Amino acid sequence: MNAEKTIRVELGSRSYDVCVGEGLLAKLGGFVAGLGRVSSAAVISDTNVAALYGQAAMDSLAGANIPARLIRIPAGEQNKTLAVWGGIFDGLFDPHKPVDRDAVILALGGGVPGDMAGFAAASALRGIRWVQCPTTVLAAVDASVGGKTGVDHPAGKNLIGAFYQPRGVLMDVNTLKSLPAAELRSGLAECVKHGVIRDTGLLDTLEKNSSSILAAEAGAMIDLIARNVAVKAAVVSADERESNQRAHLNFGHTIGHAIETLAGYSMSHGEAVSLGMTAAMRLAAWRSLVGEADVNRVTGILSRLGLPTRRQGLDAGELWRIMQQDKKARGGKVRMVLPLRLGKVDIFDDIEPREISRAVESLAGQAGKESS
Amino acid sequence: MNAEKTIRVELGSRSYDVCVGEGLLAKLGGFVAGLGRVSSAAVISDTNVAALYGQAAMDSLAGANIPARLIRIPAGEQNKTLAVWGGIFDGLFDPHKPVDRDAVILALGGGVPGDMAGFAAASALRGIRWVQCPTTVLAAVDASVGGKTGVDHPAGKNLIGAFYQPRGVLMDVNTLKSLPAAELRSGLAECVKHGVIRDTGLLDTLEKNSSSILAAEAGAMIDLIARNVAVKAAVVSADERESNQRAHLNFGHTIGHAIETLAGYSMSHGEAVSLGMTAAMRLAAWRSLVGEADVNRVTGILSRLGLPTRRQGLDAGELWRIMQQDKKARGGKVRMVLPLRLGKVDIFDDIEPREISRAVESLAGQAGKESS
Repeated sequence: MNAEKTIRVELGSRSYDVCVGEGLLAKLGGFVAGLGRVSSAAVISDTNVAALYGQAAMDSLAGANIPARLIRIPAGEQNKTLAVWGGIFDGLFDPHKPVDRDAVILALGGGVPGDMAGFAAASALRGIRWVQCPTTVLAAVDASVGGKTGVDHPAGKNLIGAFYQPRGVLMDVNTLKSLPAAELRSGLAECVKHGVIRDTGLLDTLEKNSSSILAAEAGAMIDLIARNVAVKAAVVSADERESNQRAHLNFGHTIGHAIETLAGYSMSHGEAVSLGMTAAMRLAAWRSLVGEADVNRVTGILSRLGLPTRRQGLDAGELWRIMQQDKKARGGKVRMVLPLRLGKVDIFDDIEPREISRAVESLAGQAGKESS
Repeated sequence: MNAEKTIRVELGSRSYDVCVGEGLLAKLGGFVAGLGRVSSAAVISDTNVAALYGQAAMDSLAGANIPARLIRIPAGEQNKTLAVWGGIFDGLFDPHKPVDRDAVILALGGGVPGDMAGFAAASALRGIRWVQCPTTVLAAVDASVGGKTGVDHPAGKNLIGAFYQPRGVLMDVNTLKSLPAAELRSGLAECVKHGVIRDTGLLDTLEKNSSSILAAEAGAMIDLIARNVAVKAAVVSADERESNQRAHLNFGHTIGHAIETLAGYSMSHGEAVSLGMTAAMRLAAWRSLVGEADVNRVTGILSRLGLPTRRQGLDAGELWRIMQQDKKARGGKVRMVLPLRLGKVDIFDDIEPREISRAVESLAGQAGKESS
């Protein structure tokens, strides 16, 4: 058994630990009991994850003598809606056993149940405690740090939600063994992002250990996830003091989010971000911020991890329009995070439509030679 | 024209002013413009209030060159639902003009649109600024201080929501002239509560000025509302440092809330609280915390303001069950706020079912003699 790793997310009175290890789901009950007065627990999970790990979570809570209920929501980003979210409260406020202020919500699953359960915790009785149990790489390295919760609206992703920190995160890497390969890769895109914005050593790890990472080997995953959580925790903590740090996490996401919106739910978040990072690296190279070798290194890692760096048929004009409507845009101005070198980025407000066009067109393939 | 009054709500970085005066709706645009960068405004109001004051708010915003939209929600507490609340976002994220982070929400109306608009502001893009423009006494003296926002669930009132402070409150007392008498009285019940928990001078004012208050005369309302806001602001500010202060605001609400729940929407909040305060005063007298004269003074003020102190046919057992399920109850224990003397209260955790029975039974009328 590989050793657990714990990373502290420093947020003043809202600080909490992210624990990464093997078999942590069996320790859930003990962890919740350690939070103080706990009247009951509500495990919120999607139908897929509940079938795999719901019973393990419930058993662990029962073992700690914590009365618990399991609330299932339909799986899939298309169900990340206000209507489905509202249904969670019918489970929480079951007339036979309504939750009180000492109840704890447990978010079991990937980003969708995590975001929805966290927003339900933020809103139930105007806020009760919650603990996140991510079961995907993406949820572990991204959603588990920073307290962003919410749901989608037909007009865009995550338009409705709250900043609401969990009391702790338990990442059981054993759950990653059942993760579909496409979802594993999707999470790895965020790991590449963390490497580019803050930690070139992480890029080395992704290059060297790609096969054990793609096989979801426990030791490799504990190292990888802990290192990524540390990057994100540092960024989020710094943002408490110094604004704009957190915006660095949008590297690859300006164009990536627009591509994802345009593709509907036919493309994973990670694939879209991979394309967005590829486009952003090239745009940065054309601005002479980074060299061709840096672009090739990043696209090479993405390819090695099975992530796309090419996409036909993207409409640059349509993408520009979507970027202007992004909730991060102000007054129609498009902001992008670009590398100054690998491991360091900055925010640029002066992005021209023609730069976006050129970057998007490069994704069609003729510029793919750089990663060969 | 009577002089405006401004009360500061001290909440650290979330501090704000409550302005009470005549004709403030016409100054709304200027106030919003003073908040800093403002891309647009969304006035959220119910159908009744929008018909009366929606245009005045929109005109004022137009006068300050702030693009604005008016979002109407159906009037009435029965519409304080997640479903109606969700519809607000269709207005905010109108594909032709989605709000961005520099937008400001204006809550125009009584407690229901105020709570719903505030919760929408808390949740849109994970939180944008909002300003409250109460048009009822209840909203002005209660909802405008403390940042409690939210919606009801079939299992209970205000079960879903957020603590989210506005950037300011503009209370135009001219809007109170159109307030139905029953709604005016409902707000006055909270004024009596503030007097009992903190400010006996307020009880004097309610006794002396009852006729000009019931006629909603501007000068009397400015004084009354400012004094009440000051009480609530002091309580809420103190609670930031010392917990449990805020719980004092529940005086009259433990039994009152249960009566309101049992009555469905057939009884106003103020009527229920008036009955709850009457019952709580008597319970306190039986415990020898206050004297009969104090009970008579409070029930006398309630009667003078047209508020009920008697109610037939209340089922004490049913009320006890509802109180145990109240979101403020912990582990089935019922807490009540009781006066130690007029102007000072404390919290009691040892309330017995038979005390509740006796207090509820006293509301049936035979004990009404004390206020004669």
